[in-house]
Amino acid sequence: MGLDVCVLPDAGMSPKITGELLRLLRNAMRNCKYVSEPIQAYIIPSGDAHQSEYIAPCDCRREFISGFNGSAGTAIVTEQHAAMWTDGRYFLQASQQMDNNWTLMKMGLKETPSQEDWLISVLPENSKVGVDPWIIAADQWKNMSKALTSAGHSLVAVQDNLIDVVWTDRPERASSQLRILGLEHAGVSWQDKVTALRGKMAERKINWFVATALDEIAWLFNLRGADIEYNPVFFAYAIFGMNSIRLFVDLKRLSDPALRDHLQLDSPSRPDMSVQTFPYESVYTELQAICAALGPKDKVWICDKASCCLTQVIPKPHRTPIPYTPLCLAKAVKNPTEVQGMKRAHIKDAVALCELFAWLEKEIPKGTVTEISAADKAEELRSQQKDFVGLSFPTISGVGPNAAIIHYGPLPETNRTLTVNEVYLIDSGAQYIDGTTDVTRTVHFGTPSAYEKECFTYVLKGHIAVSAAIFPNGTKGHLLDSFARAALWESGLDYLHGTGHGVGCFLNVHEGPCGISYKTFADEPLEAGMIVSDEPGYYEEGAFGIRVENVVLVVPAKPKYNYRNRGSLTFEPLTLVPIQVKMMNTELLTQRERDWVNEYHRRCRDVVGAELERQGRQQALEWLIRETQPIV
Amino acid sequence: MGLDVCVLPDAGMSPKITGELLRLLRNAMRNCKYVSEPIQAYIIPSGDAHQSEYIAPCDCRREFISGFNGSAGTAIVTEQHAAMWTDGRYFLQASQQMDNNWTLMKMGLKETPSQEDWLISVLPENSKVGVDPWIIAADQWKNMSKALTSAGHSLVAVQDNLIDVVWTDRPERASSQLRILGLEHAGVSWQDKVTALRGKMAERKINWFVATALDEIAWLFNLRGADIEYNPVFFAYAIFGMNSIRLFVDLKRLSDPALRDHLQLDSPSRPDMSVQTFPYESVYTELQAICAALGPKDKVWICDKASCCLTQVIPKPHRTPIPYTPLCLAKAVKNPTEVQGMKRAHIKDAVALCELFAWLEKEIPKGTVTEISAADKAEELRSQQKDFVGLSFPTISGVGPNAAIIHYGPLPETNRTLTVNEVYLIDSGAQYIDGTTDVTRTVHFGTPSAYEKECFTYVLKGHIAVSAAIFPNGTKGHLLDSFARAALWESGLDYLHGTGHGVGCFLNVHEGPCGISYKTFADEPLEAGMIVSDEPGYYEEGAFGIRVENVVLVVPAKPKYNYRNRGSLTFEPLTLVPIQVKMMNTELLTQRERDWVNEYHRRCRDVVGAELERQGRQQALEWLIRETQPIV
Repeated sequence: MGLDVCVLPDAGMSPKITGELLRLLRNAMRNCKYVSEPIQAYIIPSGDAHQSEYIAPCDCRREFISGFNGSAGTAIVTEQHAAMWTDGRYFLQASQQMDNNWTLMKMGLKETPSQEDWLISVLPENSKVGVDPWIIAADQWKNMSKALTSAGHSLVAVQDNLIDVVWTDRPERASSQLRILGLEHAGVSWQDKVTALRGKMAERKINWFVATALDEIAWLFNLRGADIEYNPVFFAYAIFGMNSIRLFVDLKRLSDPALRDHLQLDSPSRPDMSVQTFPYESVYTELQAICAALGPKDKVWICDKASCCLTQVIPKPHRTPIPYTPLCLAKAVKNPTEVQGMKRAHIKDAVALCELFAWLEKEIPKGTVTEISAADKAEELRSQQKDFVGLSFPTISGVGPNAAIIHYGPLPETNRTLTVNEVYLIDSGAQYIDGTTDVTRTVHFGTPSAYEKECFTYVLKGHIAVSAAIFPNGTKGHLLDSFARAALWESGLDYLHGTGHGVGCFLNVHEGPCGISYKTFADEPLEAGMIVSDEPGYYEEGAFGIRVENVVLVVPAKPKYNYRNRGSLTFEPLTLVPIQVKMMNTELLTQRERDWVNEYHRRCRDVVGAELERQGRQQALEWLIRETQPIV
Repeated sequence: MGLDVCVLPDAGMSPKITGELLRLLRNAMRNCKYVSEPIQAYIIPSGDAHQSEYIAPCDCRREFISGFNGSAGTAIVTEQHAAMWTDGRYFLQASQQMDNNWTLMKMGLKETPSQEDWLISVLPENSKVGVDPWIIAADQWKNMSKALTSAGHSLVAVQDNLIDVVWTDRPERASSQLRILGLEHAGVSWQDKVTALRGKMAERKINWFVATALDEIAWLFNLRGADIEYNPVFFAYAIFGMNSIRLFVDLKRLSDPALRDHLQLDSPSRPDMSVQTFPYESVYTELQAICAALGPKDKVWICDKASCCLTQVIPKPHRTPIPYTPLCLAKAVKNPTEVQGMKRAHIKDAVALCELFAWLEKEIPKGTVTEISAADKAEELRSQQKDFVGLSFPTISGVGPNAAIIHYGPLPETNRTLTVNEVYLIDSGAQYIDGTTDVTRTVHFGTPSAYEKECFTYVLKGHIAVSAAIFPNGTKGHLLDSFARAALWESGLDYLHGTGHGVGCFLNVHEGPCGISYKTFADEPLEAGMIVSDEPGYYEEGAFGIRVENVVLVVPAKPKYNYRNRGSLTFEPLTLVPIQVKMMNTELLTQRERDWVNEYHRRCRDVVGAELERQGRQQALEWLIRETQPIV
């Protein structure tokens, strides 16, 4: 699933009535219980205190106040106005979900003012603009504050979230059971990960590291939770010193003896590996206490995307913001156990998908399969596989024109029936205890048109160009993005999303610091052991959508020469699901591309075929064998 | 010539004796005539007050104080130390040119401290670090000042350049005669360019624009100078208001009546198009006066690479720094007259090079041709062409291992004889009144080895991949860089420089804001009418160097489809010099690549052949016809 891909609303499309809510919010903006002086504007960003991509229901504050539930958007409420900034993916959806108390600010259009410019144009002189400092990232705070100050206003931190004040039925913050990831899955003990982290800290003369990203904390402690749908993480912070480890988490979660044993809470083996536990909420005061005791040269690492609130606790001379934390970097390079786990997960996932496609082929002609029932079937088949935990993101299941909506998720009111006349795109994935999957296949159950085949073939050429690319060690993923587009460009086509994202191992399906996208320059170089997706596409509005996505592992390559001894890398597909030959115009493929397809299908047949046989899934096996016939 | 390519010293290789100079400089650092309080360190950047890439002899201050004359380097002198930061291209050269008063700081190596870190480590507490605010760019000042301040030191502007204080025989600043570029060459009058500039200013509500880059000023006024070798520019500043134009230049240069007429100095046609002239040095006080009279909402544009001194004259609330000025952007898109001029210039340049190669072929077996004499011959042949002004950069002429030094320029002590046994690389170009050229060819006058041919062919494949690429309007050049490398990467090879740079029209051979390089992300999108170089290479240390470079024009392309009506672009080669077939392993070329070569050679033969015939250059014509035989 692409980084730009997100979910359509699962609520209906009638706008939320927000007049009364906005009145209450504006009261709170003047209420001295919450603000020392009235504020003239209140900013409601998306996101939670950990800057998570997916957020828990209790953190959907922007959706609550506006009705708009797209994945990206920032609301600003002043005494007179309520405005919502979102990007082109969501113009239609936002306009349908918000009532006329709201003004939609279409980002990316020339005439749309920035949030700063708009605020400056509507605010009375010397205004105060409030924001929850836990939700806004430090760099966003800085930019906003600068712009407002230069226009005579000020940005103020409002400690009580004013949406929570008016949100009477706000859900509780989840506190799901924690799951211990044994060494057989994690590969490296959390103690060894702490030791490696401290090595990095010592190298850079850093004394403390504040971890705020939920997937980094889960990864480090070899723990998983279920606090956020699709993401096996749990709400926590952690602070690492050279001799201490502080974990901030709902303490009720730590009653399980196995968990206490895993973290060695009761019998610490070594003082420097002893985890001290604190309530989740006490991270602020504890970090304050640490900072109060800093030596003059002590330095504290914190991600530059962490919350403004926590960042500003660290006095500036001691603060060392970093774009990617050492945990983010270490997590991205999968260890051999994780790689084996990812491979196993992808084989199981392929079994489920082979079954799905064999089933679809049989059922579609009956006219009973819809986008939703196909997605449900995919989930059902995956759930039969060993160590299945859940989906890794909401299934994108779209037929005909629906698949041209890049971030489409079927709703009862948009749900189309699969037929033998239209192209079907399914982008889906799951969390297994041994790994995370994410695969897109585009198939036709009748006869695709010449144009559909042509477009599919260009997309496939792009997919192969990335997957088969050989490139020097140290190359950043964004340098490979154009390879995925060259064949489309040559015919005047393109797709408006990135080509790939990092994939976690039984963790978030989107993770940094690597990826393949023209949009970034700040990605970290690809390294053997990193795992990314390779997913070019083509979308013809009102007609069809095409995407071919594999998850691929970065592996060493051995080309003929070795310039400057740098070594080379390439990709090995982890996803092993046949790519539909019926959709290809094989005449447009070069011999090397045909060889790639045949070699890929041979591996699918060998590896997944063996597992299908082991599981006794005969019908899917027959489908697999038929679908992996060599092309000429 | 690549952006990373620069000149070897033309002075000998014995180090400069700098002990006495450093003593004098350190005296000046304590002399209250120049500094209100003694400074503990003095920074000597490369560059002039206009942040020019090539600089005039009077601005070679870092070379004067250290002896090191590479194109990139920053010297810092403290009471105890003298240190020079430069990059990998210059480690050897710098170590040979500097005596042991100097410490070489090898940039890019892990153990090398940054200038800031080094200063902080060697300075006594509360030190003052001085720099000439005219030479340091505003953003560099900001970073350095921040780092020093956070460590308890301060960065101070020293108005008198302390190198000039000790440089008793410093050359005069050149004040060459100005040349008027008629409409038949410029295509657009300077008045129309001013009108367009003011349109951009009005669009962004900007009241003033300070032009500091020499090529932008030359371009705007349709004037050319010769103040800096290879660059037809002249020392000047300009300040544009909505109703006024101020030009700061040595007033002695404006005595020529034709020039006064061109600028309408004596009989201004319209008050808002009246150029007021001021002495070059008065830009500071004049800008101060303008800024003193600014209205509260007035805004001033200045390039963020302009000098700290001039930037800081503009009060911060009024200052709007921009990465690329509207002149830089307008200059990059050549108008039809400029395109025609560039085409003419490239045909003349090709005539000279065909002659050169025909001559070399005949002369080399005699053993009398050296790298230097070949370069001289190239210059002689170019100078026979109409409207020749001079070279556009120092000729890179290297045979065998010398060509593997990317920035090689032959010196008497390194000069090798051309033979039939080694690969010869010549990267050269000229300034003609109608355009600027820059071309690299790599040739063998005997029989190249299979390995040399293989490497050449990969480089050629990269050259063709860029040249023939079709890409959507709005694509930035850096997205094409990997196309140039894919064939090399596949065999484990690469080159460590960018693939292309913008080329001026009878202006600097390197210009922004476009280019083709993995190193930048801040380039502006390619547009029809832009002109860049396409020059991948391969360099095998101690053996040979290969580069294939054409200057290419961005032109509209018409592929089969037109996604979202964006339109597509591709490149048209302006350079029309045969690419040596003898160096190709044609078996490694695809049919499409062979077709490209044949079509390119057909154009060389048609276009340049006609001109050779017109000029009666029979021998070169025969060579051209032979060298452009189709390959199969």
